[in-house]
Amino acid sequence: MLELNVNLGERSYPIFIASGVLNDEIRLKTYIGDCRPVIVTNETIAPLYLEQFKSQFEDLSALTYILPDGEQFKTLSSFEKINAFLLQNNCGRDTCLIALGGGVIGDLTGFVAACYQRGVPFIQVPTTVLSQVDSSVGGKTAVNHPLGKNMIGAFYQPEAVFIDTQSLSTLDSREFSAGMAEVIKYGLIYDTELFSYIENNVALLKSLDETAMQHIIQRCCQIKADIVAQDEKESGLRALLNLGHTFGHAIEAQMGYGVWLHGEAVSAGMVMACELAKLRNSLSDSEVTRVINLLNAFDLPVKAPKEMTCEDFIGHMSKDKKNLKGTIRFIIPTEFGRCALVSDVTEQQLKSLF
Amino acid sequence: MLELNVNLGERSYPIFIASGVLNDEIRLKTYIGDCRPVIVTNETIAPLYLEQFKSQFEDLSALTYILPDGEQFKTLSSFEKINAFLLQNNCGRDTCLIALGGGVIGDLTGFVAACYQRGVPFIQVPTTVLSQVDSSVGGKTAVNHPLGKNMIGAFYQPEAVFIDTQSLSTLDSREFSAGMAEVIKYGLIYDTELFSYIENNVALLKSLDETAMQHIIQRCCQIKADIVAQDEKESGLRALLNLGHTFGHAIEAQMGYGVWLHGEAVSAGMVMACELAKLRNSLSDSEVTRVINLLNAFDLPVKAPKEMTCEDFIGHMSKDKKNLKGTIRFIIPTEFGRCALVSDVTEQQLKSLF
Repeated sequence: MLELNVNLGERSYPIFIASGVLNDEIRLKTYIGDCRPVIVTNETIAPLYLEQFKSQFEDLSALTYILPDGEQFKTLSSFEKINAFLLQNNCGRDTCLIALGGGVIGDLTGFVAACYQRGVPFIQVPTTVLSQVDSSVGGKTAVNHPLGKNMIGAFYQPEAVFIDTQSLSTLDSREFSAGMAEVIKYGLIYDTELFSYIENNVALLKSLDETAMQHIIQRCCQIKADIVAQDEKESGLRALLNLGHTFGHAIEAQMGYGVWLHGEAVSAGMVMACELAKLRNSLSDSEVTRVINLLNAFDLPVKAPKEMTCEDFIGHMSKDKKNLKGTIRFIIPTEFGRCALVSDVTEQQLKSLF
Repeated sequence: MLELNVNLGERSYPIFIASGVLNDEIRLKTYIGDCRPVIVTNETIAPLYLEQFKSQFEDLSALTYILPDGEQFKTLSSFEKINAFLLQNNCGRDTCLIALGGGVIGDLTGFVAACYQRGVPFIQVPTTVLSQVDSSVGGKTAVNHPLGKNMIGAFYQPEAVFIDTQSLSTLDSREFSAGMAEVIKYGLIYDTELFSYIENNVALLKSLDETAMQHIIQRCCQIKADIVAQDEKESGLRALLNLGHTFGHAIEAQMGYGVWLHGEAVSAGMVMACELAKLRNSLSDSEVTRVINLLNAFDLPVKAPKEMTCEDFIGHMSKDKKNLKGTIRFIIPTEFGRCALVSDVTEQQLKSLF
């Protein structure tokens, strides 16, 4: 069992990483406390893990809300339905929401927890690579709006995060790859050693070797915890975690949420950010190739959708949360393994990308 | 100019109370800072105050969103529409929302501010008695759900509160009375001197004498600020501010939001809480009569709607946010001028009320 801590004063919480931690009844119950548990999950996860997971606290008369699977359900409409479900069941402030699933389930459940009766506790039990290495840690919760990704949400921290690497065994390969895009991102913004480790262990990771997976998950969570502890509400440093996301969110919104997986969009977006860095002479040709090769090794897209024009991108990016005074800001590598938030990307540079 | 402070560490903020503070351009601009102002108001307030208010920061190209007037618009649907409006106008995190109106506008705008791009600053400019003495201070933001009042929201503090007593001159008398219910509430939970002051100045207050109004507004805001500073997220003390609200919210939900004004429902609810206190021997007959007489003096309802049964009340109150482990909890006077949160009200006691 690996245990990390996200240090945020009175909002601090632990991350437990292990094979089988989904069934760590005693530890789970410690964090549920005196509350009534309500599990939020989806139609893919429920048949695989729900009964087994729920059986641990049958005595607490847990409720379950099951959503359809997919980014297209991370909406204000789903948010409303879960709130109505809680009200119909007379759930009080002594309710503990448990997000059992990937990033969509975690972000949506966290946002409901932030707002239901002005806030109830919640626990993250992420079951995908993407949610285990990124979205379950740090308290960013949100739903999408047709006009922009994650535009309505809250910074709201969980009570604890339980990461069970066994649950990855049922992940389909496309979801696995999408998660690896975020792992590669951590290497590129913060940790060249992690980047090299991934390069050197592609086959092992693709076979879901639990030791290798735990190694990279633990490393990503540690980086995320470090950054979040320094900048919980993204006034500076934390924005770097958005490498590839400015372009990526534009792809997701343009193509329709769920058509490209979030990680796939981030993968193409990261290459675009690297190309931009090359244009600005902060990455070399061979470094960009190294990034492309690694993303290719995990069968990830390395180009924007053919049908998207420069204007499409600018249209979406003009609504990006990082923007200031109407200027689009980008996270761009300043050297291999380091990034910065810049405001001086020219339209000329953007056009050269296409 | 009266100035109070809500002491909440880094979330502290000032409350300015004066005649004409709505036009205090320099002070307002200080709190807008570098942000782009977006004014949210309603169809009643807009023709009266909007142009004059907005003219102060024409140079900041302020946007305006105008809602219909009424509690029935304090919904997730209005919340969605304001978010869409902000996105359509490419508003970034450097947006400052300004709530110009009563409690509905303040609660709704505050909740949008809490969630838009995970949080942007906002300023409260309350224009009704109710919002000036109560809802604009303390950071409780929310929308209603058909199944319960204020069920979806956030604790989210404004940057500043500007209370202009001049704006009360256009308030209709029913709204004025509804606000006075909350003022009388402060007397009953915290300050018998305030209660006596209201008793002794009914005519003056009804004539909207600005000195008298400023006196009671300042006193209510001071009480609210004291309580909120001790218990921002309502883990104990703050719940006392809900005297009359357990019954009152049930009336609002049952009758349809907007049919009874919030303050009217609180008025009837307060009498019910006092009757309950009499049954429990903590208020005397003459003390309850004193409360009823004062509410009557402001033409406020002192009885629950005839058509509501005990079961109707219990149905709604079983969803109350103060409930714990399925038990309905009530705020009840323990003596004249003091209240407590109690869990031991029996069904028998409730039935005796009807």
